[in-house]
Amino acid sequence: MIIVLKPEATEPEIEHIMDRLQELGLKSHISHGQERTIIGVIGDDRILQNQPLTALPGVESVLAILAPWKLVSREFQKDNTVIDVGGVKIGGKKIVMMAGPCAVERLELTVDIAQEVKAAGGSILRGGAYKPRSSPYSFQGLGREGLDYLLEAKKKTGLPVISEILDTRDIELFLEKADIIQIGARNMQNFELLKEVGAYDKPVLLKRGMSATIKEFLLSAEYIMSRGNRNVMLCERGIRTFETQYRNTLDLAAVPTLKELSHLPVIVDPSHATGKWNLVAPMSRAAVAAGADGLLIEVHSNPECALCDGEESIKPSKFKDLVQDLKKIAEAVGREV
Amino acid sequence: MIIVLKPEATEPEIEHIMDRLQELGLKSHISHGQERTIIGVIGDDRILQNQPLTALPGVESVLAILAPWKLVSREFQKDNTVIDVGGVKIGGKKIVMMAGPCAVERLELTVDIAQEVKAAGGSILRGGAYKPRSSPYSFQGLGREGLDYLLEAKKKTGLPVISEILDTRDIELFLEKADIIQIGARNMQNFELLKEVGAYDKPVLLKRGMSATIKEFLLSAEYIMSRGNRNVMLCERGIRTFETQYRNTLDLAAVPTLKELSHLPVIVDPSHATGKWNLVAPMSRAAVAAGADGLLIEVHSNPECALCDGEESIKPSKFKDLVQDLKKIAEAVGREV
Amino acid sequence: MIIVLKPEATEPEIEHIMDRLQELGLKSHISHGQERTIIGVIGDDRILQNQPLTALPGVESVLAILAPWKLVSREFQKDNTVIDVGGVKIGGKKIVMMAGPCAVERLELTVDIAQEVKAAGGSILRGGAYKPRSSPYSFQGLGREGLDYLLEAKKKTGLPVISEILDTRDIELFLEKADIIQIGARNMQNFELLKEVGAYDKPVLLKRGMSATIKEFLLSAEYIMSRGNRNVMLCERGIRTFETQYRNTLDLAAVPTLKELSHLPVIVDPSHATGKWNLVAPMSRAAVAAGADGLLIEVHSNPECALCDGEESIKPSKFKDLVQDLKKIAEAVGREV
Amino acid sequence: MIIVLKPEATEPEIEHIMDRLQELGLKSHISHGQERTIIGVIGDDRILQNQPLTALPGVESVLAILAPWKLVSREFQKDNTVIDVGGVKIGGKKIVMMAGPCAVERLELTVDIAQEVKAAGGSILRGGAYKPRSSPYSFQGLGREGLDYLLEAKKKTGLPVISEILDTRDIELFLEKADIIQIGARNMQNFELLKEVGAYDKPVLLKRGMSATIKEFLLSAEYIMSRGNRNVMLCERGIRTFETQYRNTLDLAAVPTLKELSHLPVIVDPSHATGKWNLVAPMSRAAVAAGADGLLIEVHSNPECALCDGEESIKPSKFKDLVQDLKKIAEAVGREV
Repeated sequence: MIIVLKPEATEPEIEHIMDRLQELGLKSHISHGQERTIIGVIGDDRILQNQPLTALPGVESVLAILAPWKLVSREFQKDNTVIDVGGVKIGGKKIVMMAGPCAVERLELTVDIAQEVKAAGGSILRGGAYKPRSSPYSFQGLGREGLDYLLEAKKKTGLPVISEILDTRDIELFLEKADIIQIGARNMQNFELLKEVGAYDKPVLLKRGMSATIKEFLLSAEYIMSRGNRNVMLCERGIRTFETQYRNTLDLAAVPTLKELSHLPVIVDPSHATGKWNLVAPMSRAAVAAGADGLLIEVHSNPECALCDGEESIKPSKFKDLVQDLKKIAEAVGREV
Repeated sequence: MIIVLKPEATEPEIEHIMDRLQELGLKSHISHGQERTIIGVIGDDRILQNQPLTALPGVESVLAILAPWKLVSREFQKDNTVIDVGGVKIGGKKIVMMAGPCAVERLELTVDIAQEVKAAGGSILRGGAYKPRSSPYSFQGLGREGLDYLLEAKKKTGLPVISEILDTRDIELFLEKADIIQIGARNMQNFELLKEVGAYDKPVLLKRGMSATIKEFLLSAEYIMSRGNRNVMLCERGIRTFETQYRNTLDLAAVPTLKELSHLPVIVDPSHATGKWNLVAPMSRAAVAAGADGLLIEVHSNPECALCDGEESIKPSKFKDLVQDLKKIAEAVGREV
Repeated sequence: MIIVLKPEATEPEIEHIMDRLQELGLKSHISHGQERTIIGVIGDDRILQNQPLTALPGVESVLAILAPWKLVSREFQKDNTVIDVGGVKIGGKKIVMMAGPCAVERLELTVDIAQEVKAAGGSILRGGAYKPRSSPYSFQGLGREGLDYLLEAKKKTGLPVISEILDTRDIELFLEKADIIQIGARNMQNFELLKEVGAYDKPVLLKRGMSATIKEFLLSAEYIMSRGNRNVMLCERGIRTFETQYRNTLDLAAVPTLKELSHLPVIVDPSHATGKWNLVAPMSRAAVAAGADGLLIEVHSNPECALCDGEESIKPSKFKDLVQDLKKIAEAVGREV
Repeated sequence: MIIVLKPEATEPEIEHIMDRLQELGLKSHISHGQERTIIGVIGDDRILQNQPLTALPGVESVLAILAPWKLVSREFQKDNTVIDVGGVKIGGKKIVMMAGPCAVERLELTVDIAQEVKAAGGSILRGGAYKPRSSPYSFQGLGREGLDYLLEAKKKTGLPVISEILDTRDIELFLEKADIIQIGARNMQNFELLKEVGAYDKPVLLKRGMSATIKEFLLSAEYIMSRGNRNVMLCERGIRTFETQYRNTLDLAAVPTLKELSHLPVIVDPSHATGKWNLVAPMSRAAVAAGADGLLIEVHSNPECALCDGEESIKPSKFKDLVQDLKKIAEAVGREV
């Protein structure tokens, strides 16, 4: 941590700052430059990042040297984390296709889609039982019953299941019925939920918040890991910008950046990122080319009647074609689908 | 709802759209323009806003006519909602000052600050017992004990208390100990929490999410009201933009806009909005001039040692001066402090 | 155009609106719905988009039906525009590599880089002679001399040259010395410059403004085309968002979106988009996978001494490897490099 | 400047960095911390801000100590700059009202509005002769003729005139006919135009770009001042964010921030900032309360027929009422209108 002093900082102010650092158990080192005096703090930067140092008289600005996360960092673990979900390896050479309906609606439909997803080359079944919807008047999901439908589809197809949790009170249910627990974008900083899923070793897919920086995203993953759960995947799903042409702006530079800063697998969700079915294929291709470890795609047999997000769902036949395309791109970047 | 068709839309596609609308119980009306054919839908727009109409072949775009909320709207209730919190009226002529420490730290400190807040002209005591922090390594609040300290301060001063809830499992605790339950920015779309606080009539202060549109903000308030709770206040606390000079960008145009669209009281939090103590006073003045019904301000006796957000806290003496300034501005706009 | 009336709009207000439309030479059609009355305007939407209709008493909102551009639209021209620049076809099956230094610095260096770019598979030489820099104290480019160096490099290699114009007064110079005139992001809405380059048929590469919507971007291209110049390319170069990890956020969903809305070629600049040399390769791969017609890449023999944007420049050897990688991805999407 | 090294940086890499700094004429100072080694650079930070230091092997990040501007800074000049425009002082105790039509349309109308502006308490007349419009099909202004109308209105009322320049080729015209030259938001980084107006001492009002940071805004002002022109005013006019409820998001925290960092006068434009006439009054009140030195407001006798931006224009009678309101708020903050 570097503390930059105001040009007019007085001696007593400087002493007061040094005292405060000592109280916090830190050593410091003062250096008088041509235009500014700076104080270098020796010791763990991270303690200081929670201290209101700019509230001290005489301080102009504070510059952090270290990233505020530990366990998620590539510095902490050089090798990629590979997560095993019922035999499916996430984070290895093979790029994993997770697909299924936005919301679970009916049992037969769920099983049908699951079978089509499997036949097309998908290896994880996605489906929302509890749905976070902007409006209280929108379909809110089938809840517990939806999870049962997913389990039934899993029995029929062998596909492990990913579904989103919304409430800490549902943790037991998800531990029992889901293979991967999804934390949605709106809950990326629902810290109580992060702590809760952090207490088990059930794999977690953490979506980036709508306006979360890479830094905040990794800190939220750190919340989960710091409670003991090492099976965390990061999911880029578009960020909010001024552009209104698509629902969100897919930030693909996040993929190589997250892979550089962290050892965790990185998944991309092109469906929620764009909100438009005709952008799903080109953005899936781009995500694989950018280095994603997996894709999370909405597939529905009848998008125009889907109870949730039909605009962004693709039909099973299109999904099948897409997987074929992706095989070629994966090969071009030394991976496989 | 207006459905705009693609220039190349075929007759069977148009019939299919009309059939789909009929299935949904809606009447429609086709109109052939010079460059586009459009379908006007008669009936409640809001049902359709959840339907994936752009997934229908032949549809170019869909334009909504009605706002998607009801209970929160000025159209639904012409008069301002005035909420009574232990005798303090929020939403009336008097602008309400809510102040106190970001986080509750020690009992005596809490009581001291409460007394200073009261003496300076504050009428509600704020204080965080459960703190949502970006990093798992930051101080997370005293929890239940923090709420007890606030209650103690209330006993000593008579000031009603506002504190933030983070978890649905804590609802009983907050119903018992807080006078206003705060839903923070990060939980504005934690819909399970919204539903939970909506089930009682305890006043709720709902903060705007970091990247929430006015529309989403009002829909979240609608979640609470649609469950029966009419005592909702809206709080503008800055939005996330590209500017890094301050923590967030305070969006004061939201104040008159929310007052126009809704009948609910509008509070402004200049402390979190800016993250800088020296911007709190000018932004408080601006908020009152823009028409805010109240302010939520961080006050701490010793900001440089505060366990949370000391950078943005002002000392009790500064708060006192500020309240005096605000009296004059309130008078200039026909209100009082 | 659809005009939505306020629920409380009076008869005289409605008549006044109808009169105003008639004055503007437009026919209209009133329709009384359950909750709102709407007026459909028959005729060219685009005239109305410049009229302050929401200033009319009784108007709640105005919804546009047609896109505000014409000449740039896919509706106006079904086939892709292919631009011939000294024999290099831009917008066809082959994806075009434009590469070179951010700023032209010395003659030999420019010629050297040009030769390496050509050897690696590049077909257009980029180089800035006039540099738009945020600070007046940064290197501002060699000006006219820089253009001469580029011409010299063109003579030696046969590579056509692209360079950025900053001032309408330099148009003659660029018409004479450049093969493609670049309009940079900061000048995307410098309308006088757009009109100026629109008056000739010299190819123009128009960069998307830092915070320009797709709509504004296409309108700026329309400015150029409406003056007669049909040789326009669109260049996505990242938009400004809250994320500070990279210089800008590369918006790759813009690529298929622009290709759908317009017939113009779409180029991607991964260097300025990210501001980091190690993101250039993954973002180039992603851009090709997303459907880009070309890439604009900064290549410098000695990035650490570059006078401009060395952080984002790659060495010729890396550029050569990248072109090889891109060949495979291009093939996977049915194109070639 | 602080250079933070990667944990794995090698000795030769470190030596190479030190050599590079020496080449640039700078002294440096190495310091080995617990987790990172850092190099402190002694000397003028600003030279280094243009060097691609992160391109050097072994460098993790680079932290700037000094702001990159000089002449605009409060550090450079403690006292407020007060600009005299034909007897009207801008930047002093009195808050200056600049008002008039968005675009100059007809001579009589211009003179009429000028007279009403004066009668209501305005002291500068605004009016656009050259209009930057997103669409080539929108009214582009009367050009030279418009400037003549403004001059005529000035003769009749004595009000000095502000108008926007779009092209370096028009500089003579503006020097002759305008009292203040406005650089619009879209041209904030049209550096050739900045240099041009910097070469004279004619007062310049520089608007903040739609997505310009405070830092970039001040650097653009520095461009003008570094050419010799000291008569620069800064104008906050809203920034682009995700919110679509208003045209832009007025960033009022910029007002006290700019006043703290710089000695230049700060003006607020509530009309363009919001794009809605009914937000002009509350945002004007808030701007004065926040410390603005002046307001730039669109006033039009017949907004619904205005050729440009009628949606955001207020009628002269409303402007008159507003000035009365602002007098009270100005008094409350120790200023006058």
